[in-house]
Amino acid sequence: MNEARSTVSAASIRTRVEAAYARIAEVARPEIWIALRDKTHVLAEAGRTDPSLPLAGLLFAVKDNIDLGPSPEGERFATTAACPSYAYTPESSASAVVRLQEAGAICIGKTNLDQFATGLVGTRSPYGAVRSAADPDLISGGSSSGSAVAVALGIVDFALGTDTAGSGRVPAALGGIVGLKATLGVIPVDGVVPASPSYDCLTVFAPDLALAAETMRVMSPPTSADPAWRPWPAHLHLAAPPRPRLAVPIEANLAALDPDFTPLWTKALEAFAAAGADLVPFDARPLLDAALLLYEGALLAERYAAFGAHLDTLPADADPTVAAIVRAAGKFSGADLAFDQQRLRAARTKAAALLADFDALVLPTAPRHPTIAEVGADPIGLNALMGTYTNFVNLLDMAAVAVPAGRAGTKHFGVSVITPAFADQVAIDLAARYLGVPAPLFAPADTELVVFGAHMKGMPLNRQLTDLGARYDGEITTAAAYRMYALDTTVPKPFLVRDERGTNLPGERWLLSRAALGTFLHALPAPMTLGPLELADGTWTTGFTANTPTGVDITEEGGWRAHVG
Amino acid sequence: MNEARSTVSAASIRTRVEAAYARIAEVARPEIWIALRDKTHVLAEAGRTDPSLPLAGLLFAVKDNIDLGPSPEGERFATTAACPSYAYTPESSASAVVRLQEAGAICIGKTNLDQFATGLVGTRSPYGAVRSAADPDLISGGSSSGSAVAVALGIVDFALGTDTAGSGRVPAALGGIVGLKATLGVIPVDGVVPASPSYDCLTVFAPDLALAAETMRVMSPPTSADPAWRPWPAHLHLAAPPRPRLAVPIEANLAALDPDFTPLWTKALEAFAAAGADLVPFDARPLLDAALLLYEGALLAERYAAFGAHLDTLPADADPTVAAIVRAAGKFSGADLAFDQQRLRAARTKAAALLADFDALVLPTAPRHPTIAEVGADPIGLNALMGTYTNFVNLLDMAAVAVPAGRAGTKHFGVSVITPAFADQVAIDLAARYLGVPAPLFAPADTELVVFGAHMKGMPLNRQLTDLGARYDGEITTAAAYRMYALDTTVPKPFLVRDERGTNLPGERWLLSRAALGTFLHALPAPMTLGPLELADGTWTTGFTANTPTGVDITEEGGWRAHVG
Repeated sequence: MNEARSTVSAASIRTRVEAAYARIAEVARPEIWIALRDKTHVLAEAGRTDPSLPLAGLLFAVKDNIDLGPSPEGERFATTAACPSYAYTPESSASAVVRLQEAGAICIGKTNLDQFATGLVGTRSPYGAVRSAADPDLISGGSSSGSAVAVALGIVDFALGTDTAGSGRVPAALGGIVGLKATLGVIPVDGVVPASPSYDCLTVFAPDLALAAETMRVMSPPTSADPAWRPWPAHLHLAAPPRPRLAVPIEANLAALDPDFTPLWTKALEAFAAAGADLVPFDARPLLDAALLLYEGALLAERYAAFGAHLDTLPADADPTVAAIVRAAGKFSGADLAFDQQRLRAARTKAAALLADFDALVLPTAPRHPTIAEVGADPIGLNALMGTYTNFVNLLDMAAVAVPAGRAGTKHFGVSVITPAFADQVAIDLAARYLGVPAPLFAPADTELVVFGAHMKGMPLNRQLTDLGARYDGEITTAAAYRMYALDTTVPKPFLVRDERGTNLPGERWLLSRAALGTFLHALPAPMTLGPLELADGTWTTGFTANTPTGVDITEEGGWRAHVG
Repeated sequence: MNEARSTVSAASIRTRVEAAYARIAEVARPEIWIALRDKTHVLAEAGRTDPSLPLAGLLFAVKDNIDLGPSPEGERFATTAACPSYAYTPESSASAVVRLQEAGAICIGKTNLDQFATGLVGTRSPYGAVRSAADPDLISGGSSSGSAVAVALGIVDFALGTDTAGSGRVPAALGGIVGLKATLGVIPVDGVVPASPSYDCLTVFAPDLALAAETMRVMSPPTSADPAWRPWPAHLHLAAPPRPRLAVPIEANLAALDPDFTPLWTKALEAFAAAGADLVPFDARPLLDAALLLYEGALLAERYAAFGAHLDTLPADADPTVAAIVRAAGKFSGADLAFDQQRLRAARTKAAALLADFDALVLPTAPRHPTIAEVGADPIGLNALMGTYTNFVNLLDMAAVAVPAGRAGTKHFGVSVITPAFADQVAIDLAARYLGVPAPLFAPADTELVVFGAHMKGMPLNRQLTDLGARYDGEITTAAAYRMYALDTTVPKPFLVRDERGTNLPGERWLLSRAALGTFLHALPAPMTLGPLELADGTWTTGFTANTPTGVDITEEGGWRAHVG
C-alpha cells in the first residue's frame, strides 16, 4: 500500500472518490449503507487532504454503531445501531475514527449492521438484509455486514466493524477478506454503542493483511477517553517463532463444519504446515463451550443493560429476533450475572492453561455460509451455529486474525489464527505466513538490538532472540568506526570495538520489547557486552560492542568514590 | 525476625506453643476463636517442624472463611464463615495456608469474623462480638476481627485475613498493628469463601511490617488453583523514589475523622514529610465515592450470588444485619449489575488518571474507633462510616498498607499508604519510611545491575536508576580481576575492564525489573557498555564493564558471515 500511495496527489484522491461512487452505483447494493455521504462533500474533503499523510486518499466506511462527528461541510451523522428509533447524533467522532481521519483517510458513509450488533448473520436490520458480495442469495455475515461487503465489493479500501461474538470475523470470512480483532482494550472503544461492553472491541476489514494491520496501528494509541483501555504488557512477543506450535482442532470439534468446506480446511492446514508450523491436535471443546455463557447465560444481561430499556418500549423498528433475545435477558438477576462471570473467570484460567504450550490456535472462522432463506427459517439456531468458532475469543480474552481460505462455489471459507491476549503480533505473523505475504508490524516495538555474529539469522544463537519474541528488521551497516574481533568461545562469537582505524561492518537489526532486552542482557555470558553503537546513517542503536580502554587507568585508586572523592 | 529465628530449635518452638496457649488463657477472649486446635496436636506439629525453614516456629491464626485442611493428627476443620449452618469441611487447605505451613509456620486455630466477611466492625457474628485488644468496650474492627485481635494481643506471630472493603485494614488500624493488602490477584484466593470474588483478597496481620511482607511473599507465588491470579507486570517499580510525591486528602475529605484523631493525623503527615515525602493536597472525593458502588449499588449482587441462597433459607444463626444487607441484594437485576460494573470501570480509569502524578495516596485507615454499644445502636450507618477510607481500594484496583499511627486514649488510629495496582512495593517502602524501619522486599525482583561510578547513591546519575524503580541492595566487591578506567565524559564516569592484573573494586548492587534493565540499556550513551561481571564471591552479575580486545582482529574479513562462511 505504501508504494501505491507514494504517488498520491489531491487529483488522484478525487479520482478514487469518483471511482468509489461509480462502484456504489454499479453494484446496486443499497442495503450496505445506512448513511452515504454526498459525493460533493467527500470530494471537498479529498481536496483538503494532505497527500503526504500515511493513509492519504484511502476511503473507508464506518459501521453505524460507531460515532462519526459533524463534517466541516456541516453534515451531521446519526448513530443508529440499525435501530432508527434509538438514534442519536454525536457531537464528535469515536477516537478511532478521528485518528484515521488525522492520518488522511476519508470516511464515505455509515454501514448497515445486525441491529445493536446482535447477530452474526447480516439479516437482522430494518435497513434490509445485507447480501453476500459474491452471491446475493447468501448472507453477508454479521453483525458488521455493510462494512464487510463494502470492502469485499471494492467500494472502500477498508472499513470499521465491531466484534463481541465474532462480528468482525464472520463477515470477513464470508466476504473473502481479512478481519483483524485485536486484544480487548487495545483499540479505543469510546464512541461505540455498547453491546456487551466487557467483551466489545472495534475491528477493521481490509482486502489484505498489510492494510488491516496498518489501519489498526493508526487507531491503537491509548486515549483517556476510552474506559476499556489496557496497556500492552512490557514483555511482549513481537514475532511468531520460526517453528510455531499450532493447536489444531480434533475431528470432534469440526462437527459443525459444512462438508463442502472440509477440503478447504485440509488445504489451509497444509498451508500452515508448509509455512513451517507444527500442527498439534487439540481438543478445543472447553474453549468452544464458553460460547454458551455468551448467548445462553446471564452475560446477556450486559446487552439488556446496554439497550434493553429501549427495546422494552416495543419500538416498531426493532428487529424481532434481536428484540426477543435481548428482552428475554431482562429476566437475569444480578446474582445470575455474578455467578456466570465467575464461571467465565474460571474458564479463562483453564483456557490459558490449555493453550500454554502453543503459539496459537487455528480454527475455521465460520462453519458454513448459509443462504438468507436458511437464516430466515431458523434465525436463532443458525446464528448460534455461525458463532461456533468465534464466540469464545473475546470471552476468554484472546486476539484473532480472520483470513480468507478459498471458496466452495460462491460460499466463502475462512480460517482464524487465535492467540492469548496481547499476542496479536504472533497471530498476524502466522496469518501472513499462511497467506504467503510479508508480515506487517502491529504491536508496539519498544526497542532494538543489532547483532553481528552468532545471533544472526540461521546462526547457532539466533534462538536466544526468537525465544524472546524478537523480530527481524533487516540488515544494517555500522558507521566506519569499528573493528571486529573473534572470540575463542565454545560457540565462536565476534565483538566490535570502536576504533579510529575502524570500518563499516554488516549486521542485523532485531526489534524486541524492553523486558526482552533486559532478559537478554541478564543472560549474556562473559565476555560479551552490550552498548550504544553507531550506524552508517549516523543514528545510534544498541548492539554487541566493547570499548578500548582509552581513558586513564584509575584502578589503583580503589574505586570511583575514592576517585571523585 | 530472621535474626531471632536463627536460634530456632524444636524445643524453642514447643516453648512458643506453650506460651501462646498460656496467653490465650490469660487474655480470656474466647470470642477470638471459632476453632482452637488442641495444644497436644500443635505441640506434635511443633516437634515435626524443621527449624531451618524460613518461618519455622512462627504461630499463626486463620480467619474462618479460609480453608484449613485435615492435620496429620486427624483433626478436621470446618470452614464456617461465622455461619455454622453454612459450614463445610474442606479436604485441603487454601494454597496460601499450604505455603505458610511448608515454610514452617504453625496454625493454631480458626478465627471469628463478621459473618461472611460482610462488615467492618467485628460485632456481626453468632460467635460473639470481638472486643478490641486494648479496651473491651471498643470494637475490634472487622471483618477479620479474631485474626487481628489474636495478633494485637500477642497470641500469634501473624494471622490471615481477607479484604474486600477494608476487612484486612480496618481491624489492623483498630488493633495498632500492620495490615498488608496486596494488589488483587497477587495472593492466591483458592480455598477462600467468596464475598465479592471480583474484589476479594487474602491479607495478613502482623505486629511489624517486616513479618507482614515476609509472610505475604511466602504466600504469593502463582498457582493454577487460583482463578483470580494475575501476573506481575514486567515493568515493575521495586522501590519508592527518594523524594516521593504523596497525595494527601483535603480538609473536606476528612469530615468523617474523629476530632480526637486529628492531632494523630497531623503528626502522621509530619512523619511522612520528615521521611522525605512531598505532601500534595488532593481531593480524594472521586475515589471515596466509589464506595457507594460497593454497598449501595448492584455490586452487592456478587455477595448475594456467593451466599444469598443460604441466607434465603432464613437460618437461625444468620447475623440479622448481614442477612438484611445481602438478602436485599437479591433485588438487583443482571442489567443493574452490568450497569454498575461499567460505572466502576469508568471510575477506575478516572482514578488512575487522577493519581498518575503521585507515587501514593495517604489516608486515615478508619475515621474513628467506636464502642460496641455505638455499633449496636447504628449497625449499618456506623459500619459504612468505618469504610470511608478503605472501601474504594479494591474496587479501583489498588494496593494498600495499613500501619499504626498512635492512639487517643484506648482508641487506636492508623494510616494507609495506597498505590495503584502492582505498586505494592512503593506502598511498603513509604510505610517503612513513615515507621522508621527498614523496608522489606515483597515484590519479585527480576534482575539486578551493579554500578561503580556516577550511578551510585548520591552520585549525579543515580536518578537514572531510581526513576526506573530500581532498589538499592547494598555494596558489592568485584572479583580481583578488573581494572577501572576514568572516562573524560561531561559527567565523569568510570568503566571496568577485565584484566589479568586486576583487583577487587567496590560498587553497589541495584535490583530492578527486566523491563527497567532493558530501558536502562536502551538509553545508555556511548561509550558505556553493560555485560557480565564477576563478584568477589565467584558469582556473576550484570554491570558496567568492557572487554579488552583479546581475540583475533578479523575486521578486514568484512563481517561475521564472511568469517564463519
